Amino acid sequence: MPLHRFYTAPGVFTAADKKAISERLTKHYTNNGLPAFYVVVIFLEVPDDSILVGGEPSPKFVRVVSQHLARTMPTYEHKQRSVNALEAAFAPYVKERGLDWEIHIEEVPRDTWHLNGIVPPMPGTDAEKEWVKANRALEYQL
Amino acid sequence: MPLHRFYTAPGVFTAADKKAISERLTKHYTNNGLPAFYVVVIFLEVPDDSILVGGEPSPKFVRVVSQHLARTMPTYEHKQRSVNALEAAFAPYVKERGLDWEIHIEEVPRDTWHLNGIVPPMPGTDAEKEWVKANRALEYQL
Amino acid sequence: MPLHRFYTAPGVFTAADKKAISERLTKHYTNNGLPAFYVVVIFLEVPDDSILVGGEPSPKFVRVVSQHLARTMPTYEHKQRSVNALEAAFAPYVKERGLDWEIHIEEVPRDTWHLNGIVPPMPGTDAEKEWVKANRALEYQL
Repeated sequence: MPLHRFYTAPGVFTAADKKAISERLTKHYTNNGLPAFYVVVIFLEVPDDSILVGGEPSPKFVRVVSQHLARTMPTYEHKQRSVNALEAAFAPYVKERGLDWEIHIEEVPRDTWHLNGIVPPMPGTDAEKEWVKANRALEYQL
Repeated sequence: MPLHRFYTAPGVFTAADKKAISERLTKHYTNNGLPAFYVVVIFLEVPDDSILVGGEPSPKFVRVVSQHLARTMPTYEHKQRSVNALEAAFAPYVKERGLDWEIHIEEVPRDTWHLNGIVPPMPGTDAEKEWVKANRALEYQL
Repeated sequence: MPLHRFYTAPGVFTAADKKAISERLTKHYTNNGLPAFYVVVIFLEVPDDSILVGGEPSPKFVRVVSQHLARTMPTYEHKQRSVNALEAAFAPYVKERGLDWEIHIEEVPRDTWHLNGIVPPMPGTDAEKEWVKANRALEYQL
């Protein structure tokens, strides 16, 4: 469910960075009871001339577009905690390296969301717990 | 209108696969009265290390992000039928090859949507029928 | 805030085109009081076989996905003016070259949006004016 797209210039992150960022993001969600395999991270690299901020090529800028489907964030405080948590997850690879970044999280309704053709179980259900354990989509009784 | 972005590792789909997937998706919408040229499919390939699921590089995973603008899906049943239809369209290239996939459809309001600078005609209007026939955007009387 | 993603085949835009398009888009927003550095433009190029319209590879088609976070467009007229302004900004590089294009603007709630870890100031506030002047995110009293 959470889908995180990172837009950067080439070489901003190494393969090891990408793995670490995605592991740290994944941990945030598994700590909140979600299956690990819900957490998808995609790094999209474009040439230096193809990522521009205020009209200037900006190879030291990281734009993150996150989408949440499995859980809603009912309050402003909840939303701030979530975006802070994501930023903390990638901070060692972004903030602590002096890069600039921008992020927003979109809340997408879950009613058109499928994993391997299956409607993902509702939050906190037994079926969701089975998905956590198996770490993959399983058929279940709706 | 429908915009379908497929995120994959390199080489998951051949050029012929991409054409077939987009043709099959297009047929789903033209069967529902939409102009063929509304159906845009974009394949975004990232290196194996840049698409991660649950913290692991996942070159056999396909993430589809779909957006609908021309039609709304008023009920849950309608939404399920739509996502099922999309999954059926790409099943021969994804499910039947043993790949994992995830999809969601976003409904985007049509009031900021233009094709070649023109506000697309409302569903079922004569103007829309002309667009179907011409298979391109035409000026029309609002 | 405004995030503009341009999906094209390779070579549709030169580096100079990309700079000019992003400068012209930036000017639209700075004319409306926004900080220049809010305007992010990302060009995503995919091979000719990977951008398809109605089932056909379409290397002369430009798909723009825009997102607004800092300002809302309260009326239909406002929305039309905005999308027209964006189209005018890239017209010399798209319409005037005989390319086809499609655009929509998504309005994304600002309550999960951070720049360098900071909640962006509300429209028209003194803090926002400071951001305009500095052209970067600054800590401020909420």
